[in-house]
Amino acid sequence: MHITIIGMGLIGTSLGMALRTAPPAARKLPAAPHITGYDANPHACRRARERLAIDTVAATLPAAVAQAQLVVLAVPVLTVRVLLHELAPLLPAGAVVTDVASTKAAVCAWAHDLLPAHVDFVGGHPMAGREQSGPDAADAALFRGARYCLTPTPDTRAPALHLVTAMVETLGARLSFIDPDKHDAYVAGISHLPFLLSTMLIEVTAASPDWNAMAPLAASGFRDISRLASGDPQMHRDICLTNQATIVRWINDAVACLLAIREHLEAQDAAALDALFVHARNIREAWLQQQLPPAS
Amino acid sequence: MHITIIGMGLIGTSLGMALRTAPPAARKLPAAPHITGYDANPHACRRARERLAIDTVAATLPAAVAQAQLVVLAVPVLTVRVLLHELAPLLPAGAVVTDVASTKAAVCAWAHDLLPAHVDFVGGHPMAGREQSGPDAADAALFRGARYCLTPTPDTRAPALHLVTAMVETLGARLSFIDPDKHDAYVAGISHLPFLLSTMLIEVTAASPDWNAMAPLAASGFRDISRLASGDPQMHRDICLTNQATIVRWINDAVACLLAIREHLEAQDAAALDALFVHARNIREAWLQQQLPPAS
Repeated sequence: MHITIIGMGLIGTSLGMALRTAPPAARKLPAAPHITGYDANPHACRRARERLAIDTVAATLPAAVAQAQLVVLAVPVLTVRVLLHELAPLLPAGAVVTDVASTKAAVCAWAHDLLPAHVDFVGGHPMAGREQSGPDAADAALFRGARYCLTPTPDTRAPALHLVTAMVETLGARLSFIDPDKHDAYVAGISHLPFLLSTMLIEVTAASPDWNAMAPLAASGFRDISRLASGDPQMHRDICLTNQATIVRWINDAVACLLAIREHLEAQDAAALDALFVHARNIREAWLQQQLPPAS
Repeated sequence: MHITIIGMGLIGTSLGMALRTAPPAARKLPAAPHITGYDANPHACRRARERLAIDTVAATLPAAVAQAQLVVLAVPVLTVRVLLHELAPLLPAGAVVTDVASTKAAVCAWAHDLLPAHVDFVGGHPMAGREQSGPDAADAALFRGARYCLTPTPDTRAPALHLVTAMVETLGARLSFIDPDKHDAYVAGISHLPFLLSTMLIEVTAASPDWNAMAPLAASGFRDISRLASGDPQMHRDICLTNQATIVRWINDAVACLLAIREHLEAQDAAALDALFVHARNIREAWLQQQLPPAS
């Protein structure tokens, strides 16, 4: 079957690699995939081809989707909108479109508004990633065991959902169906806020006149808490712009919590600090226990 | 030579294991160490002995230090104070005392006030750790290649500094000499603030009515940014209580930065968000480049 991946970054390239190298037992697509790749940057396409993520490089967007049965948009959120607009007159009847962007309400609304009736859309979001970006960072195992959200809406037709589900299963990911608005509210707390905390940590420490003396002492704790700040800026900008209201609410909660901690410090309140740190540790340990084990 | 480690937690046990298994080329101590371990919890001592971190278990504090030439206090900061008070009449003349606590100004002042003139103190802080605690989490390689701060003061006599330096070199760590106040200011930004951010992230997300639905979707980003919240609550409480003023200043900077980010979001200011995220990423990448490679 003809699959087209648009965007040969970390996710698009990893997705192609994973689909092309899926073990026989995991192959749930109706037929062996022939994967066409397209990226506005020809270098990214070349690298994706070299990494065996795609069978064919398309030189233009119309060529990329001319035969497509399944189209995966692996680009930052705001680029999804541009592509939906450009693809609308190009997509063959019966094509199914999905995406991998980190916010879903806006994307689902755009797809509803922009795509013709003979094309189906199913929003998707793999809960997997790395702070590195680009095809060189891609990994065929990136999705294995990871959650993969799909956000069907009342519009979504069963065969389209079935096809995208088969793709997710072929990747070895664990499927979650979720409402687009709920998705955006949840990931704002567990993903978008953590990114902003990483970025903020880098900004405040590096703004210190002592940064040059501090930096060599920073160790694994600093490295981990700041890790997400190395993520793709454009991707995160688009996330912020399409999930703005929810992220603002999480920032307000974060600020309120930091101010509460500051009060405990100013009061030298040992019991309150103890209770807080024990509470947070217990919650995190319980969360870790509930995490699914890595897939083999 | 007789070394006594008081506190058989993650750091004390790792330190004993590292000293006893140092490769010949790294052995800088004046003679082969005989290590005595003491912990108020006998189970911790037993586990440390089973893990070959110590040669001898001491049943009491006086017995632990009766012959000690070097005493390492591997306990939370406020327990260092208690121990300095208790050890003052017990320590043999010429003994050198060091500690591994995460704040140094208070510790150095207590040592100055509490220890007798025939005993030397050198404050220490290995920039290494794990979120797990206790002897079972110990690792002989924990300090290898890590920074290890020593905070000599004008009081510090050369032979004492020489001995603690030899211990740090035997661990395979990289020595940094630093003023105690500067140490506390720097680690507040690169270590204590990150811990509080991890804790805050857990608190605000787990306080959400949606937590049970969100938690299963949280992935590696959430795991990393929240990692430090699993750290030892007592250790972190003591850090907060002995480095309170500096940590409060960092919290203020953090809140100001989050509010600035909120303004960009509310203004839907794509250019400002872009600039911020590119700036933070570049700083972090430059920091990573300057990090020393892991020691072999």
